[in-house]
Amino acid sequence: MEKPLIKAIVFDAYGTLFNINSLDQVLHQYFDDRAIELGVLWRKKQLEYTWLRTLMDQYKPFSEVTMDALVYSCHQLGLTFDAGIQDELYKKYLALEAYGEVRSILESLSKKAALGVLSNANQQMLQGAIDRNHLGGFFTHVLSVEKIMLFKPRKEVYQMACDAFQALPGEILFVSSNTWDAVGAKSFGLKVAWLNRLGGVMEELGFEPDYVLDEMQQLISYEL
Amino acid sequence: MEKPLIKAIVFDAYGTLFNINSLDQVLHQYFDDRAIELGVLWRKKQLEYTWLRTLMDQYKPFSEVTMDALVYSCHQLGLTFDAGIQDELYKKYLALEAYGEVRSILESLSKKAALGVLSNANQQMLQGAIDRNHLGGFFTHVLSVEKIMLFKPRKEVYQMACDAFQALPGEILFVSSNTWDAVGAKSFGLKVAWLNRLGGVMEELGFEPDYVLDEMQQLISYEL
Repeated sequence: MEKPLIKAIVFDAYGTLFNINSLDQVLHQYFDDRAIELGVLWRKKQLEYTWLRTLMDQYKPFSEVTMDALVYSCHQLGLTFDAGIQDELYKKYLALEAYGEVRSILESLSKKAALGVLSNANQQMLQGAIDRNHLGGFFTHVLSVEKIMLFKPRKEVYQMACDAFQALPGEILFVSSNTWDAVGAKSFGLKVAWLNRLGGVMEELGFEPDYVLDEMQQLISYEL
Repeated sequence: MEKPLIKAIVFDAYGTLFNINSLDQVLHQYFDDRAIELGVLWRKKQLEYTWLRTLMDQYKPFSEVTMDALVYSCHQLGLTFDAGIQDELYKKYLALEAYGEVRSILESLSKKAALGVLSNANQQMLQGAIDRNHLGGFFTHVLSVEKIMLFKPRKEVYQMACDAFQALPGEILFVSSNTWDAVGAKSFGLKVAWLNRLGGVMEELGFEPDYVLDEMQQLISYEL
């Protein structure tokens, strides 16, 4: 049986290509010893708000959802929200660092397939982090949900990758460190590699990724 | 200005009419001192799975989503899932107790408006808890999302109440103790009373409930 050809490898951004831990530095400046607790709740609500807004047909850009989630989390924990943090967090998002291994892996993979990014984040946020790490040359397409005003895991989001690369779902390998994103992409029909950076467990949502990676480096050894 | 007439008062089920804390007894039997930790994660995943499945167009009945969430939570916490718990939890769901004040409040409200239930749960689960508490006589409609195979907060769910009661959105008062459910109903256009049993804070999702209740009793004093 002939193996399906992978035309493009498409990456999730935050937590997959870019390390978001540096955002915690800003939280720490503003909230000191409550920063860790706040950070956990904030990330949970940030995700929830992308899902709930999509379910309610009430899209708002990721940057705004992110701030709404922080305001809620401050209220919930009895902390005072200082609007000044908004600009600082946004600047930090634009300057996120790629994980150390990303550049060499992209360099290697770019010889085998076209590469892309597909993310919930605003186009400007994505481009900021890509430029800051000088990765722009590797990506044929940097796709933000901004254009269709729906968040992952709606199928329309994953369809963007097919449209951009003029590929069938099975011809795209999608790489994400987020379990629910890996499931969403698989449910749509993409080939999926789940990058299990933190040793978590897969969701019980009826779909399994095609590959489970302990580290991104393993992508290079796959015959595509 | 004339006040809009409320034709029907529609209640969420779990956490609003019915106390779900008794489910923890079953968890405790199976998981002993890990039951509390497990219960928190389980409820979080149960909700997440309703949202994610709806976003992915992968509906599964609430009873099954509930078990999937428990399986995941056991894996995540390194606990062994015993399939025997499934039947016991389901039986417990069918026998949930209504909060103590519910009967007298329904009795009083039923003189002012038609009453209903609108829930993510399977029809059989809902009917079980209603029958067990002898509340069936109060409700003109007991509505399960089972029929449309989408979970809250999709607008189609809240539309079910309008269809059943032949009412406009603004003619229905929806009562829920869940913040995100209150927001979803408001986003759709229902009148909304958020029953804040636990002293939580409202979501930052751009919609506020019409009424915030500390206790359900306060519903009776509203001029409908």
